[in-house]
Amino acid sequence: MAKDNQFVNQIADIETDFPRWYTDVVIKTKLVDYGPVKGTMVIRPYGYAIWENIQRELDARFKATGHKNAYFPLLIPYSFMTREAEHVEGFAPEVAVVTVGGGEELAEPLVIRPTSETIFGAMYSKWIQSYRDLPVLINQWANVMRWEKTTRPFLRTSEFLWQEGHTAHATEEEALEETMKMLGVYKEFAETVLAIPVFTGRKTEKEKFAGAVATFGMEAMMHDGKSLQAGTSHYLGQNFAKAFDVQFLDKDGTHKYVYTSSWGVSTRLIGALIMTHGDQRGLILPPAVAPVQTILVPIAAKKEGVLEATEALCAQLTAAGIRAETDTTDNSPGWKFNEWEMKGVPLRIELGPRDIEAGKMTLVRRDTHEKTEAPLENAAETVRNLLADIQANLLALAKKRKEERVVPAENMDELLQGVEGGNFVKAGWCGCRECEDKVKEQTAATARVLVEGEQADTCVCCGKKAKHVVLFARAY
Amino acid sequence: MAKDNQFVNQIADIETDFPRWYTDVVIKTKLVDYGPVKGTMVIRPYGYAIWENIQRELDARFKATGHKNAYFPLLIPYSFMTREAEHVEGFAPEVAVVTVGGGEELAEPLVIRPTSETIFGAMYSKWIQSYRDLPVLINQWANVMRWEKTTRPFLRTSEFLWQEGHTAHATEEEALEETMKMLGVYKEFAETVLAIPVFTGRKTEKEKFAGAVATFGMEAMMHDGKSLQAGTSHYLGQNFAKAFDVQFLDKDGTHKYVYTSSWGVSTRLIGALIMTHGDQRGLILPPAVAPVQTILVPIAAKKEGVLEATEALCAQLTAAGIRAETDTTDNSPGWKFNEWEMKGVPLRIELGPRDIEAGKMTLVRRDTHEKTEAPLENAAETVRNLLADIQANLLALAKKRKEERVVPAENMDELLQGVEGGNFVKAGWCGCRECEDKVKEQTAATARVLVEGEQADTCVCCGKKAKHVVLFARAY
Repeated sequence: MAKDNQFVNQIADIETDFPRWYTDVVIKTKLVDYGPVKGTMVIRPYGYAIWENIQRELDARFKATGHKNAYFPLLIPYSFMTREAEHVEGFAPEVAVVTVGGGEELAEPLVIRPTSETIFGAMYSKWIQSYRDLPVLINQWANVMRWEKTTRPFLRTSEFLWQEGHTAHATEEEALEETMKMLGVYKEFAETVLAIPVFTGRKTEKEKFAGAVATFGMEAMMHDGKSLQAGTSHYLGQNFAKAFDVQFLDKDGTHKYVYTSSWGVSTRLIGALIMTHGDQRGLILPPAVAPVQTILVPIAAKKEGVLEATEALCAQLTAAGIRAETDTTDNSPGWKFNEWEMKGVPLRIELGPRDIEAGKMTLVRRDTHEKTEAPLENAAETVRNLLADIQANLLALAKKRKEERVVPAENMDELLQGVEGGNFVKAGWCGCRECEDKVKEQTAATARVLVEGEQADTCVCCGKKAKHVVLFARAY
Repeated sequence: MAKDNQFVNQIADIETDFPRWYTDVVIKTKLVDYGPVKGTMVIRPYGYAIWENIQRELDARFKATGHKNAYFPLLIPYSFMTREAEHVEGFAPEVAVVTVGGGEELAEPLVIRPTSETIFGAMYSKWIQSYRDLPVLINQWANVMRWEKTTRPFLRTSEFLWQEGHTAHATEEEALEETMKMLGVYKEFAETVLAIPVFTGRKTEKEKFAGAVATFGMEAMMHDGKSLQAGTSHYLGQNFAKAFDVQFLDKDGTHKYVYTSSWGVSTRLIGALIMTHGDQRGLILPPAVAPVQTILVPIAAKKEGVLEATEALCAQLTAAGIRAETDTTDNSPGWKFNEWEMKGVPLRIELGPRDIEAGKMTLVRRDTHEKTEAPLENAAETVRNLLADIQANLLALAKKRKEERVVPAENMDELLQGVEGGNFVKAGWCGCRECEDKVKEQTAATARVLVEGEQADTCVCCGKKAKHVVLFARAY
């Protein structure tokens, strides 16, 4: 780290003030800015480029599993919301409502979609007639709106971008299989692309999606030991099929309601990236989603041939499919080092007159700060291997934290101690809502997922016989 | 065309009832459906796949010309709209207004963006300080909303999808250059990808964007001789810079307002595709945007080896980068031929036992209905060449119409005759609003673009000295 690192001085301490560290980093790296309306955000080009990389990777996975994209309307009649009792209870309090259109008061108020189960239901009712029409496997990339009181860029804003898959099936078995398949797609994506290992599992009744039979979630452990819900997949049973009369004529000649699923991830994943990998210097972006994978900094750029050689190397890397850029501004090299470190670029290449003469380049990794030299020959291969190493190392580091920071608890004191120490806590639970509420009240931790295949003797709260093992954590 | 073509019987006659032909085609081919709220549409997977192809092609062009994507909020404070006098006059009557959020009446009503000049202006004012920050070249892919009284899928709906570029520059010259550059990008894209040749040119004061100094548009001639505005690029001067105080410190040490441009195309382009290339059998999609470029139909599919051979050929084409699909449903071949013709797939391959034995395939073009045979060897190359031919032929056909159907007019009678005959009409115009209004009143034609480099003696309406040559047409 160069001595004149003004950037680091402007970022709050990551260990003692993580919330401010987060805000400092997202604003200073120009990922995002606050919009004019309270609770909204502007996703700036550097942040949006991450989202484009996420979209490309996810979209390929959705299509490989047989899904097609479509686009459904933003505005939903308010009456649709009320057709599924739990759904309206969960979402009505946080909707934005359009009451005027084209200068006239509307006969029925319209809701800006907080999620689209209802409008998909209404259309599926029209499109699905026979078992031949099933399954229907549709995804949409869209903006949604949930009016939130406390907001933070990427983590919780009134408007955000996401994808929502909505599928309809002839049987319960198929719909459940789809629900679990997409949870699996999310998990593989999170680990492979975002370098974020996750816990997956079923949610409690209290934490499930409003209108679902069962919600399955993936939870990621952030730098501060808190959990971030990074994606959910819902088995909706026949709840929405009944609310919107989605029936089909089955092979046996009888009419049946379809079984549906829905699943989504959002721009929240960008928040997960930041809080999983970042350090005191700023962002650390996994190469698979970094808008710039390699930044080239010419040293003594005014000396003859230096800038040309740097740009030639950059062109070579770009031609090999590496997202490379040359910093040609007239800032000092030290300034550039610090700025691109703050922006989380995984690899820096320095090229000066002596390097060029010796036919080599200097490489500096963002994750380990390791500085090495390598011949200019086969530069693309060298860089590609280093980027793969960095991607793997970031996953390994995150995995280590995820494994080390899970502690067991037998009683409420241990649970509290556990979460205060920045851990996830594994504990028995009797299954009753009262205990779940008490845990939250006393420790600010919530049940993140039910742990499959493990058993506990007693409930961490009431001491009665445990029905489930639960992963508790404080959460974003 | 097979005798049992039920599909064609269900589509209104293209020559005598073009509007109904259009509606029949978009609904029956499952491009789109009507949404539950009046004036909204659901873009179904087959239609959305066309949009994805359009997006991919355009996005590559935007990035190649130095633009980056970002995402700005959907909701705009109503007060922003009023800061630019012409802008609010043009857009206020057609906005949808959010008055309730999170269960409470909002202090200030919020508008769902009909376009985003105002909110880009507000953020640019924050981000741009110095000449070093310029130019700013940002695009966004987004949904927008304009409350319309008369709506038609893709052509005019209350919500639609589009992209909007918003750029800021240090000088008028640069901003004008950008405006024209993006008009050129649109034109090249329309011809190369959509196979739609266009007229481009400046719009009259009456037809320009509300808030622009000058609007440049591209106009395409539809099957019925009417014009469709397929894209616009606006030079905004300092209008929005002044309304939102977007100033920069220039090299000379003084503060100056930036000059801005904006430009957009929308899902309307899908309507343009349909109405340019379609025929009585339904859609004809140019290969560059067709979701399915080649449909394979097995003949006598139950005979041993036929289905396997067809799917093997399909896999071979797919591996070569061709969007190919096999129709494995149990419909009759004749039914399949008609259905895929209606859906506009550019090329059909039939493969039966005799073809397989002889090592060949039967190819049928959607555009010319020409049927040929070709060896199975090098199938991908054969198909690729045929698709390129089809793409070129569709453009040639559209160009021919565009050239043949422009007629001159010396007076209002000729103008009326011209547009009633399904033509664009080139005529002199004195430049006054009164004559422009009178032309519309008497002929239902409007000034589409001003023709550069041509001169006329007299105004087609008042007979006074002509200032411009104008391309008049009835328009969608």
